[in-house]
Amino acid sequence: MSDSAPLITFLSDYGCGDEFVGVCHAVIARRAPRARIIDLGHGVARHDVRAGALALRAALPYTPPGVHLAVVDPGVGGPRRAVALRLRGEGRTMVGPDNGLLTLAAQALGGVLDAVDIGSSPESLRPRSATFDGRDLFAPVAAALADGASLGALGEAIDPASLVALALPQPSIGDGALHAHALSSDAFGNVSLDATAELAARAGLGFGGVVEIQAAGVCQRGRLARTFGDVAPGELLIFEDSRGALAVAINGGSAMLALGLAPDDEVVLRRP
Amino acid sequence: MSDSAPLITFLSDYGCGDEFVGVCHAVIARRAPRARIIDLGHGVARHDVRAGALALRAALPYTPPGVHLAVVDPGVGGPRRAVALRLRGEGRTMVGPDNGLLTLAAQALGGVLDAVDIGSSPESLRPRSATFDGRDLFAPVAAALADGASLGALGEAIDPASLVALALPQPSIGDGALHAHALSSDAFGNVSLDATAELAARAGLGFGGVVEIQAAGVCQRGRLARTFGDVAPGELLIFEDSRGALAVAINGGSAMLALGLAPDDEVVLRRP
Amino acid sequence: MSDSAPLITFLSDYGCGDEFVGVCHAVIARRAPRARIIDLGHGVARHDVRAGALALRAALPYTPPGVHLAVVDPGVGGPRRAVALRLRGEGRTMVGPDNGLLTLAAQALGGVLDAVDIGSSPESLRPRSATFDGRDLFAPVAAALADGASLGALGEAIDPASLVALALPQPSIGDGALHAHALSSDAFGNVSLDATAELAARAGLGFGGVVEIQAAGVCQRGRLARTFGDVAPGELLIFEDSRGALAVAINGGSAMLALGLAPDDEVVLRRP
Repeated sequence: MSDSAPLITFLSDYGCGDEFVGVCHAVIARRAPRARIIDLGHGVARHDVRAGALALRAALPYTPPGVHLAVVDPGVGGPRRAVALRLRGEGRTMVGPDNGLLTLAAQALGGVLDAVDIGSSPESLRPRSATFDGRDLFAPVAAALADGASLGALGEAIDPASLVALALPQPSIGDGALHAHALSSDAFGNVSLDATAELAARAGLGFGGVVEIQAAGVCQRGRLARTFGDVAPGELLIFEDSRGALAVAINGGSAMLALGLAPDDEVVLRRP
Repeated sequence: MSDSAPLITFLSDYGCGDEFVGVCHAVIARRAPRARIIDLGHGVARHDVRAGALALRAALPYTPPGVHLAVVDPGVGGPRRAVALRLRGEGRTMVGPDNGLLTLAAQALGGVLDAVDIGSSPESLRPRSATFDGRDLFAPVAAALADGASLGALGEAIDPASLVALALPQPSIGDGALHAHALSSDAFGNVSLDATAELAARAGLGFGGVVEIQAAGVCQRGRLARTFGDVAPGELLIFEDSRGALAVAINGGSAMLALGLAPDDEVVLRRP
Repeated sequence: MSDSAPLITFLSDYGCGDEFVGVCHAVIARRAPRARIIDLGHGVARHDVRAGALALRAALPYTPPGVHLAVVDPGVGGPRRAVALRLRGEGRTMVGPDNGLLTLAAQALGGVLDAVDIGSSPESLRPRSATFDGRDLFAPVAAALADGASLGALGEAIDPASLVALALPQPSIGDGALHAHALSSDAFGNVSLDATAELAARAGLGFGGVVEIQAAGVCQRGRLARTFGDVAPGELLIFEDSRGALAVAINGGSAMLALGLAPDDEVVLRRP
C-alpha cells in the first residue's frame, strides 16, 4: 500500500451478527479499489445516535485525514436527509445521515465548510433498498470521495447551519457541587460524564480525594483516582477516561448497573 | 494497494471470541502476501449452514470478483467433501465444505463451471488438525487461488452436479393467501421470508395495505410498509428487507420473539 | 500492497462494543501508513491475561514475521512495566504489558533476544491517558517498529530474564491415570487441557477408546475421539483441539457448563 492510498473510516451500529458491515466493505472495494478501510467499530447500541456521535468525536482526532463514514440511522427510509460534509482544513470529509451523528465530531475537528444533500446522489446503487442506505447510498458516496470525486458532484449544496445538532446536557457548578450528567457507558459499565477534571477542580475536587457521588436518588462515597488500581476492588471511583472525560466506575464491577444510571441522569459530585 | 491486488472474501461461524478468524487471515498472508481480505462476517449462528448460505447469497453480488472463502462446517473431520469451485464468468471462485453452504450463492452468480475435491490438496498445512479445516485446508487453498494457482492443481475434478444443494421451502399462493416460510432472522429479530414483493402483489397485497399475518397458530394484523417509520412503535409490519425478500418485523421490537418463529415455519399473509 | 508491506498483528480484550480497537488501528495508520494490520482477535475475556497468552501462543506460529502487538492489561496505570521484545530469529518483535501476556508465545517462538522498557518511550502520544496504553503507548511503539525503528530507540534495555512469566499447572501421570488441568475454554464451551495426545498415550489412552473423566468431584464416561462426529449428540468426548491440546467437549453442548469447569481445575483421565 502506498502512503497515498486513500483512507475511509467506518463506524456503525450494524453489529457483527450479519453480513451488513462486510457488504459495505465490498461495495467500497468495487467503487474505490485502492481505498483502505479502518473500522472504528460497529458495536454502537442499535439506533443510539448519541452514543455513535460520542464515539466518533472520541475516535476521529486519532485518525489520519480521509473520508469518515458513519451510519446509525433509525430514520432510514424516512424524511431525514443524507449528507456529505467537508470539514475545515486537513482534508477530512464525512458521510452519513443528518440526524446529529456527524456534528459533534465535525465541530471538534474545526467545523463544516461545505455540505451537500446526497439523497439523490448519482452514486447511489440501483435498485436502492428502503432500509439499507449504508450499502446503497453512504458506502458508494464515501468510496466516490475516496476515489477523488468532488463534493459538488455528489449532491445538492445545503447550508451547513441547517445540519441537525445534538442536544446534550450541560454540566454546571452550584451549591458547592459539580452537577454533571451521564453521557454514555462502555462495555465494562463505566459511565462517562459530561465533565472534565478541570471542571471538577473548580468545584474543589482534586485527584486522590474522597468524593460524594449522588445519582438516582442515592448518595455514595468514592474517590477521584488516576487508575482503577488506586482503589480497592468493589470501590467506587471517578477517573479521567480515555476520552478525556470524568467517568464513574467500580473497580472490578459495573457502575452503570450498581448505580442504575441511564443517559442524561444527573450525577452530583461534591466534597464530603 | 494496486488495483490488481487479488481479493479474498471470508465468511464463517467462528464468531469473534477466539483467535480463529485471525489465524485464517495469518495463514492467507503467508501464502498470498499481496491478497486483500474482506470479512463478510463471522457471526453466522454456529453450524447453521443455511443461514451462512443465505448470507453468502445476499453478499456476493455486491463484492468484486475474487476468491470467496466460506466456512460453516459442522461435519469437519467427517466424510463430507471439501471443495473449490469456479463459477461461470467474471473471475469468481469459491472454497469451502460441500454441505450446501456454497451452492445458493453459486447459483445466484451463474452456476458452477468446474469443481475439485480439495480434501487431499497439496496446499493443506501439515500437520492438519481434525477440527480446523478453515485454517489448515480452506484458507491455504483460497490463498493459492488468489496467488494464481489453477483449480486443477488444487484437487481432483468432480462433477459440479454432484455438489450438495440445500432443500429450501417453496412459497405458494392458495386460498387467496400467500403461503411463505421463515428463512432466517437477523440480530434485530426481523424474520426474512421466502417471498418477494412481486409474489405478494400476485396475492393481492400491496404496499400501504393492512395484512393479516398467521404464524405459529396465531393471527395478527400488520401493514405492508416501505420502512419502519410507516408504522407506529410496537406495530407489526411486512417490509422488503435489504436482501430483497419480504420480512416480518416489529417497529422497535423483535418479531422473531413476539411471533415465536423458527426457520421453516409457515407464515400466511392475506388481505383481511 | 507490495510483498514488503510491514505487518502488525493485534490481539486484545477490548471487545467490539467500543471504538477502542479502531482507534488503535487509526493511531498505527498515522505513524506507519504502509503497515498492514491483522487482527488476531479482540474477544479475550476482559483482563484474562492467561487466556490472552494462550491465544497468542496458538496464533503466532501461523503468522508471517512482523510486529506482534498484544494488550490484556488489568494493571494499566499501575507499576507494571510496558515492554518491547525482539525474538530469536525470523524478524519477530512483540509489544505489550509485562504481565506474562507475551512470554508463552515468545518461548514457543524461540525465546527473547533483547527487551526494552517502553514506559517512557519517545513514541508515546501526548497527552497520555492513565487508562488506555493500547492507544497512547503500545500502538505507537508497534507502529514505530513496523516503520523500521530500532528496539533501542524505543526504551531502556532490560534483562530478558526479568520478564514476568506465567505460572501454569503441570500435567502428570500417576495411579494409572493422566492428571491434567483445565487451561481455557472457547466460545463453544470446549475446555482445553494442559495435556497432549502423546501424554495420554503414555497413560494408556488411545483414540477410539472409552475414557473415564473425573472433574469437579464428578466422574463421567466419554470417548477419546478424532472429531465430534465420532460420538453421539450429547456425548462427552476428549479430542485433540486446533491448538494441538487435548480438550473436553460435548457434541452439540458446552462441556464447560456441563462439568462446571474453571481454569486450573484438575481433570483426571483414565481407562475404565
